[in-house]
Amino acid sequence: MQIAMIENKIVPTEELSPTYLDRGLYFGDGVYEALRSYNGKIFAFDKHLQRFSSSLAAVKITGVDIDRIRCRVQKAFDTAAIPNALIYFHITRGSTIRNHVWEPGLKPNFFLTITELPDSPQQKTKGIAVSTYPDLRWKRCNIKSLNLLPNVLAINDAAAKGCEEAILVNEAGLITEGSLSAFFAISDQKLQTAPLTSNILPSITRKFVIRAAKDVGLELIEKSLTPQKAADADELFVAGTTFDIVPVVKFDDKTIGNGTPGEYTKLLINRFISFTV
Amino acid sequence: MQIAMIENKIVPTEELSPTYLDRGLYFGDGVYEALRSYNGKIFAFDKHLQRFSSSLAAVKITGVDIDRIRCRVQKAFDTAAIPNALIYFHITRGSTIRNHVWEPGLKPNFFLTITELPDSPQQKTKGIAVSTYPDLRWKRCNIKSLNLLPNVLAINDAAAKGCEEAILVNEAGLITEGSLSAFFAISDQKLQTAPLTSNILPSITRKFVIRAAKDVGLELIEKSLTPQKAADADELFVAGTTFDIVPVVKFDDKTIGNGTPGEYTKLLINRFISFTV
Repeated sequence: MQIAMIENKIVPTEELSPTYLDRGLYFGDGVYEALRSYNGKIFAFDKHLQRFSSSLAAVKITGVDIDRIRCRVQKAFDTAAIPNALIYFHITRGSTIRNHVWEPGLKPNFFLTITELPDSPQQKTKGIAVSTYPDLRWKRCNIKSLNLLPNVLAINDAAAKGCEEAILVNEAGLITEGSLSAFFAISDQKLQTAPLTSNILPSITRKFVIRAAKDVGLELIEKSLTPQKAADADELFVAGTTFDIVPVVKFDDKTIGNGTPGEYTKLLINRFISFTV
Repeated sequence: MQIAMIENKIVPTEELSPTYLDRGLYFGDGVYEALRSYNGKIFAFDKHLQRFSSSLAAVKITGVDIDRIRCRVQKAFDTAAIPNALIYFHITRGSTIRNHVWEPGLKPNFFLTITELPDSPQQKTKGIAVSTYPDLRWKRCNIKSLNLLPNVLAINDAAAKGCEEAILVNEAGLITEGSLSAFFAISDQKLQTAPLTSNILPSITRKFVIRAAKDVGLELIEKSLTPQKAADADELFVAGTTFDIVPVVKFDDKTIGNGTPGEYTKLLINRFISFTV
């Protein structure tokens, strides 16, 4: 490389930070995880590491020792000493001169942040409004990659409409999931959500929701919903690591139930809490 | 943010470079352009800036003055003083604590590199082998975004097979384009390529190829090809900014023509050169 420029300043290439040559920045060539802790304990740590390992394998980033990642995450978490923390980390394929074809022997880059996770009791007690948006994402949404621009566009469309999550609808007219959550409907004592395919993230919270659903006597149906079916459901909610279960009380222009969190959803929230203590 | 960690080192957040908080890295939340110069002159500068402007608008990155970008690119190019240069630049939405929802008032980040572009006469005189790969990309490939992981996976699959480009085939069994090129077939004095939709990049080189094709008496057909039709074509080639036109002599296991660059392709290469002087 002969010249780099940051804003309007020409930078000698030898002074350029390797972060500017990160394939994560050029291509989104990396994968990530987001975990949380409850009261000083990382929740579902092994499951997140397993999924991270699967994501790495799926994009062929090699040479990452998952036990070393586990140690780093634990060390950072212990140092931060935040009881209810959001732990984000990613690994990219490495830093090098931009070239779609990756060089052998690149050293992957690891980066992590830990932030305090505020409780969002109002979201849980009042519920949220969601709006639909086309699912523009790629065909491997089961990989937790850094290619998140369609998710970003979706949730910002929702935010512009005063909603807190975008529910993605694919070309077949079926709901896949939220832009950063799994999506669930309850009708007639049945819990319905999309089946796990390469079109949705294998949500870890989803597993716990399904366990909680069995505990409260809901039958599970793994089948994609249409927006119409969702709007007509008795109850709706979204689920994800950072907020576990959040009731949905408005779906596009349609009020769900009586506009307050549904009874089963409240049972699931309480059941979920019992998993975290 | 309370704590960051780079590799195994905990970093006080106040010492963290803003590049680690770039939305380009977290989400691929940015757009880019790649231009080249021939003999000291930037080729199709206006067209690239127009496309860049469209990409910015499509992802709603605001507050970017395209004339300022033009000045920066020209200044860097003049400073580099490389007659045949590859100019890469991107703009991301800005640096901030990770949140899918973007904050109002973020300051976009501009980054540029200029590198010397080696001639690849062997590719042009001997042609290249290509292999097919599923088109896993998102549904807005007309936006030149930093979400390039599917392209990266595709071309590295090709490289592993000893090929130099991956030709992407969508779920309908039709070729969209290459992982970093437009794709063309010639049969019976007709030049065929996919029509411009949101599934392919509006290639600037494509425009010049089409102009060249008219000049050499080829009829244009804008219709997607199947891999079978491509393999049976008289001639094939790929086109892109960095390498303009490169003949394809092998398509998966099928030798194209007599295994050397086709006559029309050679005419197009020469015609293209005339546009650059």
